[in-house]
Amino acid sequence: MTSLPRILLEPLVRAALLEDLGRAGDLTTNAIVPADRRASAAIVARAACTVSGLAAAARTFVLLDPDIAVTLHAHDGDAVQANTTLATISGSPRTLLTAERTALNILGRLGGVATATRRYVDAIAGTRATIVDTRKTTPGMRALEKAAVRHGGGKNHRFGLDDAILIKDNHVAVAGGVTRAIAAARAAAGHLVTIEVEVDSIAQLDEALAAGAQIILLDNFAPDALAEGVRRAAGRALLEASGGVNAATVRAIAESGVDLISVGALTHSVTCLDVALDIDPASLEPVHG
Amino acid sequence: MTSLPRILLEPLVRAALLEDLGRAGDLTTNAIVPADRRASAAIVARAACTVSGLAAAARTFVLLDPDIAVTLHAHDGDAVQANTTLATISGSPRTLLTAERTALNILGRLGGVATATRRYVDAIAGTRATIVDTRKTTPGMRALEKAAVRHGGGKNHRFGLDDAILIKDNHVAVAGGVTRAIAAARAAAGHLVTIEVEVDSIAQLDEALAAGAQIILLDNFAPDALAEGVRRAAGRALLEASGGVNAATVRAIAESGVDLISVGALTHSVTCLDVALDIDPASLEPVHG
Amino acid sequence: MTSLPRILLEPLVRAALLEDLGRAGDLTTNAIVPADRRASAAIVARAACTVSGLAAAARTFVLLDPDIAVTLHAHDGDAVQANTTLATISGSPRTLLTAERTALNILGRLGGVATATRRYVDAIAGTRATIVDTRKTTPGMRALEKAAVRHGGGKNHRFGLDDAILIKDNHVAVAGGVTRAIAAARAAAGHLVTIEVEVDSIAQLDEALAAGAQIILLDNFAPDALAEGVRRAAGRALLEASGGVNAATVRAIAESGVDLISVGALTHSVTCLDVALDIDPASLEPVHG
Amino acid sequence: MTSLPRILLEPLVRAALLEDLGRAGDLTTNAIVPADRRASAAIVARAACTVSGLAAAARTFVLLDPDIAVTLHAHDGDAVQANTTLATISGSPRTLLTAERTALNILGRLGGVATATRRYVDAIAGTRATIVDTRKTTPGMRALEKAAVRHGGGKNHRFGLDDAILIKDNHVAVAGGVTRAIAAARAAAGHLVTIEVEVDSIAQLDEALAAGAQIILLDNFAPDALAEGVRRAAGRALLEASGGVNAATVRAIAESGVDLISVGALTHSVTCLDVALDIDPASLEPVHG
Amino acid sequence: MTSLPRILLEPLVRAALLEDLGRAGDLTTNAIVPADRRASAAIVARAACTVSGLAAAARTFVLLDPDIAVTLHAHDGDAVQANTTLATISGSPRTLLTAERTALNILGRLGGVATATRRYVDAIAGTRATIVDTRKTTPGMRALEKAAVRHGGGKNHRFGLDDAILIKDNHVAVAGGVTRAIAAARAAAGHLVTIEVEVDSIAQLDEALAAGAQIILLDNFAPDALAEGVRRAAGRALLEASGGVNAATVRAIAESGVDLISVGALTHSVTCLDVALDIDPASLEPVHG
Amino acid sequence: MTSLPRILLEPLVRAALLEDLGRAGDLTTNAIVPADRRASAAIVARAACTVSGLAAAARTFVLLDPDIAVTLHAHDGDAVQANTTLATISGSPRTLLTAERTALNILGRLGGVATATRRYVDAIAGTRATIVDTRKTTPGMRALEKAAVRHGGGKNHRFGLDDAILIKDNHVAVAGGVTRAIAAARAAAGHLVTIEVEVDSIAQLDEALAAGAQIILLDNFAPDALAEGVRRAAGRALLEASGGVNAATVRAIAESGVDLISVGALTHSVTCLDVALDIDPASLEPVHG
Repeated sequence: MTSLPRILLEPLVRAALLEDLGRAGDLTTNAIVPADRRASAAIVARAACTVSGLAAAARTFVLLDPDIAVTLHAHDGDAVQANTTLATISGSPRTLLTAERTALNILGRLGGVATATRRYVDAIAGTRATIVDTRKTTPGMRALEKAAVRHGGGKNHRFGLDDAILIKDNHVAVAGGVTRAIAAARAAAGHLVTIEVEVDSIAQLDEALAAGAQIILLDNFAPDALAEGVRRAAGRALLEASGGVNAATVRAIAESGVDLISVGALTHSVTCLDVALDIDPASLEPVHG
Repeated sequence: MTSLPRILLEPLVRAALLEDLGRAGDLTTNAIVPADRRASAAIVARAACTVSGLAAAARTFVLLDPDIAVTLHAHDGDAVQANTTLATISGSPRTLLTAERTALNILGRLGGVATATRRYVDAIAGTRATIVDTRKTTPGMRALEKAAVRHGGGKNHRFGLDDAILIKDNHVAVAGGVTRAIAAARAAAGHLVTIEVEVDSIAQLDEALAAGAQIILLDNFAPDALAEGVRRAAGRALLEASGGVNAATVRAIAESGVDLISVGALTHSVTCLDVALDIDPASLEPVHG
Repeated sequence: MTSLPRILLEPLVRAALLEDLGRAGDLTTNAIVPADRRASAAIVARAACTVSGLAAAARTFVLLDPDIAVTLHAHDGDAVQANTTLATISGSPRTLLTAERTALNILGRLGGVATATRRYVDAIAGTRATIVDTRKTTPGMRALEKAAVRHGGGKNHRFGLDDAILIKDNHVAVAGGVTRAIAAARAAAGHLVTIEVEVDSIAQLDEALAAGAQIILLDNFAPDALAEGVRRAAGRALLEASGGVNAATVRAIAESGVDLISVGALTHSVTCLDVALDIDPASLEPVHG
Repeated sequence: MTSLPRILLEPLVRAALLEDLGRAGDLTTNAIVPADRRASAAIVARAACTVSGLAAAARTFVLLDPDIAVTLHAHDGDAVQANTTLATISGSPRTLLTAERTALNILGRLGGVATATRRYVDAIAGTRATIVDTRKTTPGMRALEKAAVRHGGGKNHRFGLDDAILIKDNHVAVAGGVTRAIAAARAAAGHLVTIEVEVDSIAQLDEALAAGAQIILLDNFAPDALAEGVRRAAGRALLEASGGVNAATVRAIAESGVDLISVGALTHSVTCLDVALDIDPASLEPVHG
Repeated sequence: MTSLPRILLEPLVRAALLEDLGRAGDLTTNAIVPADRRASAAIVARAACTVSGLAAAARTFVLLDPDIAVTLHAHDGDAVQANTTLATISGSPRTLLTAERTALNILGRLGGVATATRRYVDAIAGTRATIVDTRKTTPGMRALEKAAVRHGGGKNHRFGLDDAILIKDNHVAVAGGVTRAIAAARAAAGHLVTIEVEVDSIAQLDEALAAGAQIILLDNFAPDALAEGVRRAAGRALLEASGGVNAATVRAIAESGVDLISVGALTHSVTCLDVALDIDPASLEPVHG
Repeated sequence: MTSLPRILLEPLVRAALLEDLGRAGDLTTNAIVPADRRASAAIVARAACTVSGLAAAARTFVLLDPDIAVTLHAHDGDAVQANTTLATISGSPRTLLTAERTALNILGRLGGVATATRRYVDAIAGTRATIVDTRKTTPGMRALEKAAVRHGGGKNHRFGLDDAILIKDNHVAVAGGVTRAIAAARAAAGHLVTIEVEVDSIAQLDEALAAGAQIILLDNFAPDALAEGVRRAAGRALLEASGGVNAATVRAIAESGVDLISVGALTHSVTCLDVALDIDPASLEPVHG
């Protein structure tokens, strides 16, 4: 499973670290922990989860201190059991303690996204549908959260306003109808740009199919209405279900035969994983006798 | 209720906007919506909530387009009912549609933090305890999330590793005991730096009190153990309860008599608010008769 | 014709201005031109051209001096005759002289891209083909150069490595054939990602068609080989011609019936437009009698 | 021949790479090419040229992936024959494919500048004149393009508005004459600042000589007028010819005896070199048997 | 003595280096010194001083050239005699010469702060007072200058407006008195935020003590008035003397019994140390015979 | 007297302000001072001085709060008497109090540079010498400090390593003598680059004159040796005296007839001006009755 290249990860990791170091660095650790000791520690997942952000979390320690050594025992995208050691880290105990919270904040959030995604993906196993994300991401973390969705087995919807066309109700209203909106989009778009249109009725769906939309988002359709949509589309366009998707409803939605189910909650309401940094106690013998 | 000054808000808002605009901007809106129309819209809270991030969300529109006009009808820190209009915005419909998602992402998350905080604060009304946050914040959003905690009626714990000393179990281990750790911290710290120490037993609490800690964090103490701690401290230090705090447990914890209750979930597991941008339909008449 | 939003333009304009101002600003103008005079000037296209970068060029003056007034007489995308005034600018003559070179450098290059594109577009008028650009752009200027291609009547190919899949010969070699490469790409890609594959023979074209490629790049095919490709594709995929495209060959290539013709020279070898800033001589009366 | 120090090169290289990676990185390569293979490749100049930007191009691969190994076989400033291998690169084939376009875009443009410069320099061999550049450079690339001019055997004119004084016609007009303009410049300038003045007639040249200009730019003078200027100056100032300089005219201009010939086209209208990355086919054996 | 972590030092060092390199780098060294030689040099303190900024100064060379080798012979916080070698550096003589001024500028200023601090600290030896700094620091250098104060044996006052409350005369005026100001501050502040108030009379001191201020700044009190303040406070608050502190007055101020003496001159009027880079002459043998 | 353009000033002002605001802004002012009041204040020079940094200091308030109004009563370069009001500022009292320290830190340091420069300039009035600065500037503030030198009546030496050639003793050693060093420099330098060489004996001076140096730096020459140098140079090169320059020695040095006297202390050891922000007391009436 591919993580983002380091050059894309580092700015966020650096910013997170600087945010925690503030102007004066780690007052507590610098006051108490000698600079010349060695320690080792493990990053441990306390509960079963799907991993994401491990490469970024590991990078936190190295950015703070190039002399730290990190060994990964899992990779982004892995599903692991409770109490799995994801990485071991050795070097200055100061570095371990100073980078700990930043690394865990990154890993906990991104793992939370991947784990939630995996739950939705598993819930619809055997159907033809794919779980996709939305643009309801955390400011500044979109690329990492979308990678976490992939790590959880989902696929990505638009990364931004510029990599596909998604015609929403307001666009339809201004254009004066679905057909006109699609025509305007097609005239402006390059050949690589996929055109999707949101519809809120079967009548609009029919119009969108006739106008040649590649993907049609059925907004807040009940499962049987979705199934009716699937019948009418008959493979002429991909159909995406959106709205009211949760653990209780997603299976029925998937069984309607839609191709895509977009879930805002994957990224807009993340439950942080329970991950911890356990320092080897032998590393922490008292300074004085 | 004070929001952050604009110069602190803008970098995050700008980064969030650029993340959504990508390299080519809003393909859909630019293809369909004429540049020369005028529209008005309302930012509406669909459910009751405590507002935070409204100033930042409003700034999104203005950063994209200095000619947009925003009127705030609520302020960060306000508790509002469902379907309250928080702000009205008028100007180019392109700007409204292009900035919408970025603005709502900011407002939904920060309002989510404030609303969760308010729930905890209300749950302990009448006790002497204060709800405080932690450093378990979203990378890049700490200052805004901590402002949201204040907007929800909580207070802030450390902003980073540099604005107070918090001696944790690993520091105690390296130092060779609570007393030694506090002494080392006091020797290094400036006169403005508050010293807090984490303890995991009544014996350590006694040691911390004797050593003159200003604040003592009782980690994962049951309510009656907390109450015992309160009795022994007898006002000589502030006591903070931490661990296992949730909606079901927070009242009993507060009634133990502790001064502070820190809640990681305020910021590490945010439920996004249901906020929307409603564009006045009259603004959206079709382009062509 | 849509230009980029200001928030996307400004970083490049600001960087270009700072690059010219250096550490001490405009030594010559500050030494000779009084701060308190008023002047007006015109940005003039000396030769017929298609305009691009005018909004960015105008922004140069305003970024340097918010009190400057700029009136646009043309817009990005306009085709204008020789000696057309594109904009008039009034304010401090210091600002006019200091920003002049930066503004003209931006306008000259981007107008050069648009004008070259327009020439190719006009050369294939009446055919079904569309002129598209490549990723052979100037470091740091891709978004603006791709906007310039649109201003010249072309469409955009990929903005980067992340907004579509383009399987090249090396990818095919590693994958072990066109079919396998397309399958691997489809498995990894999200539903919005268009898949294009480069082929160098009719046999590979057939394989790509069978594998369901959406777009097929015919690399260095002669016009009659292109025509043969068009017949075999029979509309099942878009066909892109690439390689050896220049003013002498583009019409024949277009008449082969391909959908797209990509031209690296649009952006990799730009001829700068002849544009100038003409200051109204009355603005420049001598300081001393 | 000295290239720029790495700390000056890296920001441009990094920006160019990030521009191409976008938010999600190289979709194609990540989907098809395994992470754990090794490959080697050569950067090859397809046509004879003068090299520039090779250090920067090599840096592209290393910035993306510190484990890549680059060996340079030529250096910036070298004149090489067609099909010369400029560098060999070995490491992950993903890195080779992902960095390829960015590296070639840098090398192609800067080599284009150096090669064009070399052509002008060779055209005037044996005369006393020196080819110099102008401030008509690509936004954001001035330092690299000016290094490329040096690599091609030229010298640099001003790097910006702050490193020398160049009094142009508008400055002369405001000052009320060449003499007054030079006096004002001299009064303001530090002792290291060279003063040049542009003149458009022999009368103005005489005035500039009398006023003590160190360098005099003869704007759009025909060769015999230039020769007349050389006679009148008699070594009292350096003379620079500017305007109407091209391959057909430059020799005659140089033979007039002027010291400097400035050529905007060196940087304002660059023809990109034909350079390529050739991956060793043995590196690209199919993944599956 | 702890220096700042590298990630906090590097931005300032990089900016300082880029400021000196400008657009074209070190013209002199590149013209004269061959790239392929080796040299060694020593950073020497010409006069007795307290060291600060040595880690940052060493970093200058490495940022410019990762192949340089630096060995530190002293550390930030050390008091050294005249003509002490603080570090030895070996590698390319170009790097030594190019980084020299930037490194010495950093080391000279920060050592100047540490040395001045040490002088004040020594002057009050045996009293109970501590020397502290102020926010009168150099723009952009606060964290490094405050580290230098610690290196000189002082402690730090506020790092900014956000890490403690300091109620000044204007705040008291707006609040309507010391008591009201302290009450407002306490209501707003988190539990970690220390509250200090500035008073200008014994009456205000009494009010501040009664209102529970943790620290009280006695502004421009004469030594006997300070002593009266010490008697009245009787340990209920820390007392800080401020105003009119210099080498002649500081001992008497300290003997009044105050806890803290803040000295703006530590950072607002720095005398640069006499430090030099001595290159081993054997490294500098002529290029030609 | 020309200040730097706003686009060059703002990054430093913004960085200084952010450094003081930290993560949470001005805790004290936000807790005590209502947001909706109006106040006015004056920036006052407590002692006679030469002004520099006033434009930058004024910008501090506006960057924090665009609704603030600033009126300048003096300009950079003005010599003013004690207790002169330099600017008046009106708007939110929060803004006045929050920006105060940052603005005064900028103004105090830059005014300190200008005032010290003016003292040296006045000390040599009537001689032919000019006072110039060095590269011994504060990291990050070079452009502003060099502007301050101009405001004080001095001229600027090199802005960096790239805007002139200054051959020092180490360069001479590597080159194998003054003549060879100058020849190498001339061969590499562009026509605008001034060449200066440092000499430490009359013999070297003679060699430098013969080799055609434009400027010769006489390092640590006594006044009569300087006078001997002046005689030998006889106007063939500018002569710069450097080393041992202070208030006691500068007049004698100037009377030797040298052209330039460079003074490191102008910028390396700045005494901050006594400037203050006086808020109109009527602005500060208590909030409550």
